[in-house]
Amino acid sequence: MTQHYDTLRAVIWQDNQLYLIDQRKLPQEHQLISLDNAQDTAKAIHDMVVRGAPAIGITAAYGVVLAARAAYQQSPDNWMVTIAKDMEILANSRPTAVNLCWALQRMQALFSQITGNPESVLLAAAQKIQAEDIAANYFMGELGAGFLPEKSCVLTHCNTGSLATGGYGTALGVIRNGYAGGKITHVYADETRPWLQGARLTAWELVQDNIPVTLIVEGAAATLMRQGNISWVIVGADRITANGDVANKIGTYSLAVLARYHGVKFMVVAPSSTLDAQLSDGSQIVIESRSQAEVLMMNGQAIAATGAQAWNPVFDVTPAELIDVIVTEKGAVEKPTTEKMQKLFIA
Amino acid sequence: MTQHYDTLRAVIWQDNQLYLIDQRKLPQEHQLISLDNAQDTAKAIHDMVVRGAPAIGITAAYGVVLAARAAYQQSPDNWMVTIAKDMEILANSRPTAVNLCWALQRMQALFSQITGNPESVLLAAAQKIQAEDIAANYFMGELGAGFLPEKSCVLTHCNTGSLATGGYGTALGVIRNGYAGGKITHVYADETRPWLQGARLTAWELVQDNIPVTLIVEGAAATLMRQGNISWVIVGADRITANGDVANKIGTYSLAVLARYHGVKFMVVAPSSTLDAQLSDGSQIVIESRSQAEVLMMNGQAIAATGAQAWNPVFDVTPAELIDVIVTEKGAVEKPTTEKMQKLFIA
Repeated sequence: MTQHYDTLRAVIWQDNQLYLIDQRKLPQEHQLISLDNAQDTAKAIHDMVVRGAPAIGITAAYGVVLAARAAYQQSPDNWMVTIAKDMEILANSRPTAVNLCWALQRMQALFSQITGNPESVLLAAAQKIQAEDIAANYFMGELGAGFLPEKSCVLTHCNTGSLATGGYGTALGVIRNGYAGGKITHVYADETRPWLQGARLTAWELVQDNIPVTLIVEGAAATLMRQGNISWVIVGADRITANGDVANKIGTYSLAVLARYHGVKFMVVAPSSTLDAQLSDGSQIVIESRSQAEVLMMNGQAIAATGAQAWNPVFDVTPAELIDVIVTEKGAVEKPTTEKMQKLFIA
Repeated sequence: MTQHYDTLRAVIWQDNQLYLIDQRKLPQEHQLISLDNAQDTAKAIHDMVVRGAPAIGITAAYGVVLAARAAYQQSPDNWMVTIAKDMEILANSRPTAVNLCWALQRMQALFSQITGNPESVLLAAAQKIQAEDIAANYFMGELGAGFLPEKSCVLTHCNTGSLATGGYGTALGVIRNGYAGGKITHVYADETRPWLQGARLTAWELVQDNIPVTLIVEGAAATLMRQGNISWVIVGADRITANGDVANKIGTYSLAVLARYHGVKFMVVAPSSTLDAQLSDGSQIVIESRSQAEVLMMNGQAIAATGAQAWNPVFDVTPAELIDVIVTEKGAVEKPTTEKMQKLFIA
């Protein structure tokens, strides 16, 4: 199939199949993999073919379409029961991104209204989730950029662009809008160890958009801030609790502490599907630890001494008190508290 | 030649030649390279065959021996003039480690007292510098460990062990002593991007000593501290200014800010040869920026997107106010100030 670069998408539905850009191979190889069942879709999420909380949610929604197709083929009268196992496999593919559960619940809520073959209804629903995500990103891009001063540099972490979402991006959406509007003159990006999402994915997206990007190792962020030319740190989120605590890629909390120390502002950009109002604060978030090999190896080669162990938590929690603003498609919450978050989301 | 593992040395003089462990190849390959002239020695320092401020100083001292040999062969009556060019080449091999200049000056101070062939006098002086460094490290190891509570975990950055010094190590000397004495139960080590000194070298040394070591990416240090089981961050230094500001591997300053925020103590361990009393504070330290390729490539392969730039400062400056104690072979300075530093070093 043909990939249209002018509308870069990590998650693509075409010819009755789900296609994912294999993000493990970027930027060296730009490869699409096709998926025709829910189990393989769950495995692709688990193996990080696709990553980024919104993109995971969208992928899971399309996974439900594939699951429904199989369930309906197997038992047309009983597909809502047959599909349960695939729904569970999809739900367990990654633990931290709440958008995954949100998307599955939104899809499941339609089941009871469907008569006959569920595929077209569910496909339309999944496509709507993706389209809404893109629309939300454009809106958040504009809203977030409004907080930026003129002509400044910003620092971002991990990848929050088209590859991490339905398209355009959350934090990277703000950066795209800010650069287009002259607010941002230069982007610094943490390389984001161990998976190097910054070096591999964020740099790749920004280079394609001709937005000047300079990579740094995480250890250089404090010195960059001390030099005084970073106005904002702008990041995404994998889960936001009721009080505004934010789980995001490991290293985010470090940046938040450093930003506060240096008088740099800290912005979180995420769609409302990232909110987990069930959890009162970040201490309740399950943080995924992945294989030690992600730290100890690179490109299949050992980079660490034999016999060394590694601790590889892939997310951390930034407490609300270190966040200057959370930008969502429902509006922005400055200096988040439980009350302010409730007002935005429940009201 | 045979390497004796029981006395691991990064810098070895044997059979009238200088041998260096090629630290670019560790831990996969344990290779020695031999050097018989000062230019190649300077290049080995520049290319980071050897690294670590004390080890660089010791290597340069042996480089002077090789330079004197060549100069004396070329012009026995005039070697002190002939050697000047090699002295300059050695001095310019790396900019940040002051131990390099300190060692060269200490060697040069002997020149005027030498009659006849200078090699044996200078060799004895270089060997004395190395032996004193090792002795200083054992002393600092004991002194620094005295500050640690019983049975705690510590976090270190970069490599400050036998490979970075004459032998035993500075910060890693404190860790070795602390582990032997039951003060330290577990060591966490930053992998230390971009050169991975933590993953490649510190882990290699600690595994050999059967000291339990867990690697983390720099982005995980804040979360590790927040979890509350790190008592001290222990690091080395490449240059210490008169007021106690410390230049050290990029990422050190970040750890110091994070440690202060989390109530974790911060220790710098370095021999007095690291002090640059000429500089009143850290703003005057020249910070080396190395090739972007160190961030953008790994093992000769691109890891970042084509077209991305990188900023690669290899040191940063930690202000004295973030340091709880500087441990030297002349004593320890708690909460360093210009007055306290002067008292220790000048008096």
